[in-house]
Amino acid sequence: MAKLWKKGYGLDADAEDYTVGEDYLLDQELLPYDVQASVAHAEMLSECGYLSKEEAGSIVSALKKLGTLEIKKGDEDSHTAIENYLVEKLGETGKKIHTARSRNDQCLVAMRLYFKDHLQKLESETNSLIEGLKKKKDVPMPGYTHTRKAMPSSSGMLFSAYADSLEDDLALLQSVKKILDKNPLGSAAGYGVPLKISKESTTSKLGFGKTQGNPIHCANSRGKYELLVANVLTSIMLDLNKIASDLILFSTPEFGFFKLSKELCTGSSIMPQKVNPDPLELVRANYHVVSGYEAMIKGICSNLISGYHRDFQLTKGPALKSMKITLSSLKVMQKIISGLEPDEEKMKEAMSKELYATEEAYKLVEQGVPFRDAYKEVGKRFM
Amino acid sequence: MAKLWKKGYGLDADAEDYTVGEDYLLDQELLPYDVQASVAHAEMLSECGYLSKEEAGSIVSALKKLGTLEIKKGDEDSHTAIENYLVEKLGETGKKIHTARSRNDQCLVAMRLYFKDHLQKLESETNSLIEGLKKKKDVPMPGYTHTRKAMPSSSGMLFSAYADSLEDDLALLQSVKKILDKNPLGSAAGYGVPLKISKESTTSKLGFGKTQGNPIHCANSRGKYELLVANVLTSIMLDLNKIASDLILFSTPEFGFFKLSKELCTGSSIMPQKVNPDPLELVRANYHVVSGYEAMIKGICSNLISGYHRDFQLTKGPALKSMKITLSSLKVMQKIISGLEPDEEKMKEAMSKELYATEEAYKLVEQGVPFRDAYKEVGKRFM
Amino acid sequence: MAKLWKKGYGLDADAEDYTVGEDYLLDQELLPYDVQASVAHAEMLSECGYLSKEEAGSIVSALKKLGTLEIKKGDEDSHTAIENYLVEKLGETGKKIHTARSRNDQCLVAMRLYFKDHLQKLESETNSLIEGLKKKKDVPMPGYTHTRKAMPSSSGMLFSAYADSLEDDLALLQSVKKILDKNPLGSAAGYGVPLKISKESTTSKLGFGKTQGNPIHCANSRGKYELLVANVLTSIMLDLNKIASDLILFSTPEFGFFKLSKELCTGSSIMPQKVNPDPLELVRANYHVVSGYEAMIKGICSNLISGYHRDFQLTKGPALKSMKITLSSLKVMQKIISGLEPDEEKMKEAMSKELYATEEAYKLVEQGVPFRDAYKEVGKRFM
Amino acid sequence: MAKLWKKGYGLDADAEDYTVGEDYLLDQELLPYDVQASVAHAEMLSECGYLSKEEAGSIVSALKKLGTLEIKKGDEDSHTAIENYLVEKLGETGKKIHTARSRNDQCLVAMRLYFKDHLQKLESETNSLIEGLKKKKDVPMPGYTHTRKAMPSSSGMLFSAYADSLEDDLALLQSVKKILDKNPLGSAAGYGVPLKISKESTTSKLGFGKTQGNPIHCANSRGKYELLVANVLTSIMLDLNKIASDLILFSTPEFGFFKLSKELCTGSSIMPQKVNPDPLELVRANYHVVSGYEAMIKGICSNLISGYHRDFQLTKGPALKSMKITLSSLKVMQKIISGLEPDEEKMKEAMSKELYATEEAYKLVEQGVPFRDAYKEVGKRFM
Repeated sequence: MAKLWKKGYGLDADAEDYTVGEDYLLDQELLPYDVQASVAHAEMLSECGYLSKEEAGSIVSALKKLGTLEIKKGDEDSHTAIENYLVEKLGETGKKIHTARSRNDQCLVAMRLYFKDHLQKLESETNSLIEGLKKKKDVPMPGYTHTRKAMPSSSGMLFSAYADSLEDDLALLQSVKKILDKNPLGSAAGYGVPLKISKESTTSKLGFGKTQGNPIHCANSRGKYELLVANVLTSIMLDLNKIASDLILFSTPEFGFFKLSKELCTGSSIMPQKVNPDPLELVRANYHVVSGYEAMIKGICSNLISGYHRDFQLTKGPALKSMKITLSSLKVMQKIISGLEPDEEKMKEAMSKELYATEEAYKLVEQGVPFRDAYKEVGKRFM
Repeated sequence: MAKLWKKGYGLDADAEDYTVGEDYLLDQELLPYDVQASVAHAEMLSECGYLSKEEAGSIVSALKKLGTLEIKKGDEDSHTAIENYLVEKLGETGKKIHTARSRNDQCLVAMRLYFKDHLQKLESETNSLIEGLKKKKDVPMPGYTHTRKAMPSSSGMLFSAYADSLEDDLALLQSVKKILDKNPLGSAAGYGVPLKISKESTTSKLGFGKTQGNPIHCANSRGKYELLVANVLTSIMLDLNKIASDLILFSTPEFGFFKLSKELCTGSSIMPQKVNPDPLELVRANYHVVSGYEAMIKGICSNLISGYHRDFQLTKGPALKSMKITLSSLKVMQKIISGLEPDEEKMKEAMSKELYATEEAYKLVEQGVPFRDAYKEVGKRFM
Repeated sequence: MAKLWKKGYGLDADAEDYTVGEDYLLDQELLPYDVQASVAHAEMLSECGYLSKEEAGSIVSALKKLGTLEIKKGDEDSHTAIENYLVEKLGETGKKIHTARSRNDQCLVAMRLYFKDHLQKLESETNSLIEGLKKKKDVPMPGYTHTRKAMPSSSGMLFSAYADSLEDDLALLQSVKKILDKNPLGSAAGYGVPLKISKESTTSKLGFGKTQGNPIHCANSRGKYELLVANVLTSIMLDLNKIASDLILFSTPEFGFFKLSKELCTGSSIMPQKVNPDPLELVRANYHVVSGYEAMIKGICSNLISGYHRDFQLTKGPALKSMKITLSSLKVMQKIISGLEPDEEKMKEAMSKELYATEEAYKLVEQGVPFRDAYKEVGKRFM
Repeated sequence: MAKLWKKGYGLDADAEDYTVGEDYLLDQELLPYDVQASVAHAEMLSECGYLSKEEAGSIVSALKKLGTLEIKKGDEDSHTAIENYLVEKLGETGKKIHTARSRNDQCLVAMRLYFKDHLQKLESETNSLIEGLKKKKDVPMPGYTHTRKAMPSSSGMLFSAYADSLEDDLALLQSVKKILDKNPLGSAAGYGVPLKISKESTTSKLGFGKTQGNPIHCANSRGKYELLVANVLTSIMLDLNKIASDLILFSTPEFGFFKLSKELCTGSSIMPQKVNPDPLELVRANYHVVSGYEAMIKGICSNLISGYHRDFQLTKGPALKSMKITLSSLKVMQKIISGLEPDEEKMKEAMSKELYATEEAYKLVEQGVPFRDAYKEVGKRFM
């Protein structure tokens, strides 16, 4: 299959496998965004006189018919697959699609569109979880510090705290979405192109908030913007990790405050009695997976001079995979919250007197005893 | 020295050393913020009738005279040091300062004030660096991809890309500053207090944008908000890592595009000729230090149920240290940029003909040759 | 498809997708090891009287014919696939294979066999790289510190340093291989089984060095042993990262000490002249990928009480993937080293006089000048 | 204060602060090892004719009297402090100590001696913990999987599993100690010295197992050997994290299997009744601190060409600090284990019938029922 950079001698087969890696598989998910940007690019080239109206028309029409093209290993990536497809369909005209662009800005713009779209989905799934949390019944239960009973609390206060924390994530998400909302198309390989193209035209066609003017900034934002998105994902997953940690413990028979929906538990292959909270455990663990992917991105982008390096290709997997994990974790958590039942009897029983020790100290305070003395007085009752 | 929670038996000496750790040293930096919040707390207690006007007056007056109290290991932390100081100065009245608060919300509010103040400093230092970058002379130089010459670029384009990237960081910083701008005082140990206090009063006195209402959300934001700040710091340090990587390479004799100020280089203990870019190397390495501190925070906060755990104490060091490193790295980088001189002769020499290969291909494109054919045609000249 | 723990109600479809994850794909690679252990298990059960000779014989014979069974998503994992296969083939007898074992120890033993086998491969690939390095021609070249010329060195000294460092990795590998060389089969779900089985029998049949006696130790080594292997992989990848970093820089035209084989370079989609060291860049980046997978394992295993948790499932992907990446990176690096050519002319030119400054200082030392004075004297010549 | 590389112009004050960092503080701990190596170096220089017997004698004698020299910020590091001290005491003779060495190999050898000494301490503290674990009473208790009761277990089996896991760490420790047991002194700045020195002599004097011959290997092992030690520390801390996670949960009133010594618990500043397991929580959290330091080392050492870079200086803090944390965590854990009391009543109560479900299934198996059918039969009783 034709490589865009082919020069007449072949790449070593092992080296080819190694360099392509899983890129051709990952790009399957990026393909629609690559096509969308290619359409805008072709139309802009026509506006600027680099393609005739007919050429642009046939390219756009071919791209719109492309559907679910399967990217083969030999294609290397979606960018190559698209050009190969156009050359096959349109001959000479197809060879013009790559005018004034590089795979670098093509990848940048596809990732950017992917992120904008998926941050939207993330926002929507997060909001659904928040709504689910707000619908739950409010039942008094003990509040814990140091995994020990502390003061009176309630399931409503707990769920509302989850919701507040997810709202913080949404604020971060909005900010990252705005930072990313810049069109990098036209930056080519990171140093622009010596042609009179209109970046503003593709910015408008693709619905970006603004044009990312400096081409080196475009190139250097590869990996860095992936990291910003990863920050959002890690932040959300840390909240889900907290919810999962709470529910795994509070649904043990020893605590017994909540019952998990049976449809969301699994069993053991050896112990007949077991009902295990596997989805919650996997949510908990997936925080670390997403956090590990963030670590990959942070490492890959470091100690590199400005401009593109092939290293950046390996930020794509972590970015796409951690987005997918976070979205599915949010969905599973929505179901878990929805199916969760408080065991009001158990919760009531658990409201034992040590939870009210601070309140007792405050009663002495209201009688004029300095707080530290009241604290010591009440403390003696629990020794 | 009196522990706030003392119960009549001693803590094992090794366990005490282990639990106090470096907290008493770190808290020295938090002390002014702790005092500021304690003043607001005392005034609020008086407004709400838990302290007489005289008591509040004497507490506030003592706190304002406190100056640079040295926190001793035996004090455990700044919170204890403040209460011990007030009891020593004011007797019974001092024992009332801890009414309606816990060390948990006291620490939360002090950290919050510290962050607000230091994010401001960070913004200001980042802006100074951006200004410094914009002042540098613009000289043509080669643009690199894959650490190989790619297309024509310029030092102005490069420095302006740094500035754009730092602007992205500032957008993130603004967003994080806003998320953090909530008053947690009054959340006590994470479950509020059964007293009629006014959180709104301390919110207003301390200049917070809003009150963080849900006390569990307050408790659970310990560590999580540290992570948000760490995201900002890592983002800035990644930019500085890029600048450092560029300048270390571009100031080698082999490249020779820039000369570093001698006052910012060090020598070797054995090789008499050496002039080494040590500050740049340390900026590069400090990205990893800050990123490692972020990893600590991410790990410490995971797999824990809601509510306070002593684990969170260990997020304080990473937070304060990475803030300090980032601020000093920004300052050093300002000086490095300010002292940097382009070697225009070397840069001119480096503008060799392969940089113009893409331009040549585009000349063929302008003559009607499809881009991919033009690319192949020009490619032959470089084989 | 039958789940081993099925209880008469279905698992929610999304939860099932979420819990199965990519496990059924990963297990394809573990299947041969799972089969190998199942054979030993069946034979042991027969020896201990839990299976008749005929039953064991038919199970072993069916397992040996199993070949490349495709594990379907509905199978959940290789353990289930094997039992389902045996029940389908052998009816009642198949239902007996899971006697005295759990999926936990089944997975533990399969991973252990996988690791033993792949550590062997890793050792062999590392040795091949060492041999390749030792075969390269020795040519004088500058030695660098701080990315600046320091003292005279040679390509032979450099390659031999790589080899020495890889030898260190092999020492670590040997040690980890020995730690892992323990049979966990029979630990069941982490608390053994109340049956009279012989762990020693499977230990011997499977070629393990010893039996891992304590079943909780077996359960708790899930993740921990993955981390030990990850330590070895990270160590090797850090060496390859160093080699890659050297060769990327030393093969730039600006340095020019080495020429890379063209078959191991790729081009640009836009710049006709480019010959890029992509495989080296991916080796460099893959260090961070492997290191990120290690971070996942480190995070997943933390803050969990003893005994199995579903979280551990997610250590499988990082373990298998980082092993695969390291093996392929070693192979690619062997080819890169094999195709590498020194540019002796360029290397000779680069041996400039500042490299000999320390030697000059030592000449003064030999004449009786104290070293620090000699250093200062020679230093003046380079100011 | 004289810098070893001083050239007649000053380093910018901020840059000096930035480059020295906390090195002068960290080096206080390395000083005895630096002195030990300096003594061996002086004696070797005399044997090889670079110092007269008198000169060497006076240097060695001065070094032995050096005691607890305080390293000042202006000294930069222990290497400079030692040379400055010798010049002050001995004049011209002092200026000869740095003959045939660089701060690079001086630091390498000091770190190596520090590691050898502290790995020994680590081994000893780990062994003490193992012994402590083996002394505890064995009481039946439930075994857990998925944080739910699984099968019968015992505290003895649990503690013995901890011990077995720590034994694995000791095997890793031995291997790392052996890898590190090489003398790097004489490698100078990473390219040796053009003098006839005897590395074997210092190898023997300092008690190293062998000489690290290749000077580039010596230079490149900076950071890499720190990583190997970090692997050992992380491995031990992961075990302590597991023990801490178990004991925090199992000592809650809800589980109640163990009572912690009161001398190892702390209280709350607001809640009079609280007895919190703070040392255990800090052990748990310190795993993440040590793991974060490991991440720093892994990041700092990456993407750097061969030879020394100033970046490596920043691996010193993580190495020394994580060693210190691990040693103190082991000590605290020894005390915690020693003071731990089983609550036999609570443990007995907890041995409820679902723990025996697997045993019941096996009773059916012994009666000839295929395991999977027996499992389903018993499973029905728990639905």
